[in-house]
Amino acid sequence: MARVAAGPEIERLIQLLARLPGLGPRSARRAALHLVKKKEQLLEPLAASLAEARDTIIACETCGNIDTESPCALCRDPARDRALICVVEEVGDLWALEGAAVLSGLYHVLGGTLSPLDGVGPDDLAIAKLIERAGDPGVKEVLLALNATVEGQSTAHYLMDQLADCDVAVSRLAYGVPIGGELDYLDEGTLAAAVKSRKPM
Amino acid sequence: MARVAAGPEIERLIQLLARLPGLGPRSARRAALHLVKKKEQLLEPLAASLAEARDTIIACETCGNIDTESPCALCRDPARDRALICVVEEVGDLWALEGAAVLSGLYHVLGGTLSPLDGVGPDDLAIAKLIERAGDPGVKEVLLALNATVEGQSTAHYLMDQLADCDVAVSRLAYGVPIGGELDYLDEGTLAAAVKSRKPM
Repeated sequence: MARVAAGPEIERLIQLLARLPGLGPRSARRAALHLVKKKEQLLEPLAASLAEARDTIIACETCGNIDTESPCALCRDPARDRALICVVEEVGDLWALEGAAVLSGLYHVLGGTLSPLDGVGPDDLAIAKLIERAGDPGVKEVLLALNATVEGQSTAHYLMDQLADCDVAVSRLAYGVPIGGELDYLDEGTLAAAVKSRKPM
Repeated sequence: MARVAAGPEIERLIQLLARLPGLGPRSARRAALHLVKKKEQLLEPLAASLAEARDTIIACETCGNIDTESPCALCRDPARDRALICVVEEVGDLWALEGAAVLSGLYHVLGGTLSPLDGVGPDDLAIAKLIERAGDPGVKEVLLALNATVEGQSTAHYLMDQLADCDVAVSRLAYGVPIGGELDYLDEGTLAAAVKSRKPM
């Protein structure tokens, strides 16, 4: 990386921007320059927006979603189906499912997956809280919407064991060919799952 | 884009992040979530760094570089060769040249290239200031280090005309094969320039 011909303020900004996912050292430098060039249109609003996010955004104590209030807007919404809790790894997964507008239930954000090698055990995830919520007599189903990765699925199996004593049905997302997917480009695991779970037309 | 299941504060943050070069709507969403998740380690320092940049970083009134003082550290540096002014399009180009540590002269940031179709005329760039600086009897050479693009080169030709009355030598960067470049991957224009400007070994 070229040393920056500006003061330590801009170097520090570049270093921080480079820690955002999707930005490397070079694009962080470009972003910092863009910010300084668009001071009024972008740098000032972004500084204000970050300060506001810092001061107002909190994690929902019930489900782990982020919002300015706890419980969050989803947990407070009386129209949501309180019999279904959809368990996701991260807030981004919750947003993706909400974007699909296919679930009327509540959510539960684990905060990651079990990963003994990285030192992430059950106590590092919001698992105790999930068991507590699943113990509510009004809850009928827990949908484990974890990523279809090794980590996601081993976490799902652990959760299934933990939920065995709760009076809830435990479900998972369907595996198969993604909509718009071309068979020629799909991996063998997906194709095998799609064949195994084939449906009558 | 999925609608975000959080308040308007986070939506606004995502929209602002998406305006950074290198980030699209999806990566901006990921960056916003990352920021909120790493509140103390990343969001707070970034908010503080942006606020500091907003309050302290200004454009150098002489050369257009950014710094916390004007004239900037480069213009103030007594060790720099005041006989050479290197003209660049943007501050990022100045940083790139400084990173190569090959120039001991001063810089002049134009702020873009002439682009009549986009409504960018000579008065929108720091051209008058360049002519003024080039009129200083101590200045012997103006190096036009503009991009080797159509816009950069037409701007360079315009500047050459404008500098005709100043008592300075006007130069440009050499064209040729980039170091480490493989001929098979180079465009015809570069190859033609490299052949035309061939040097005795």
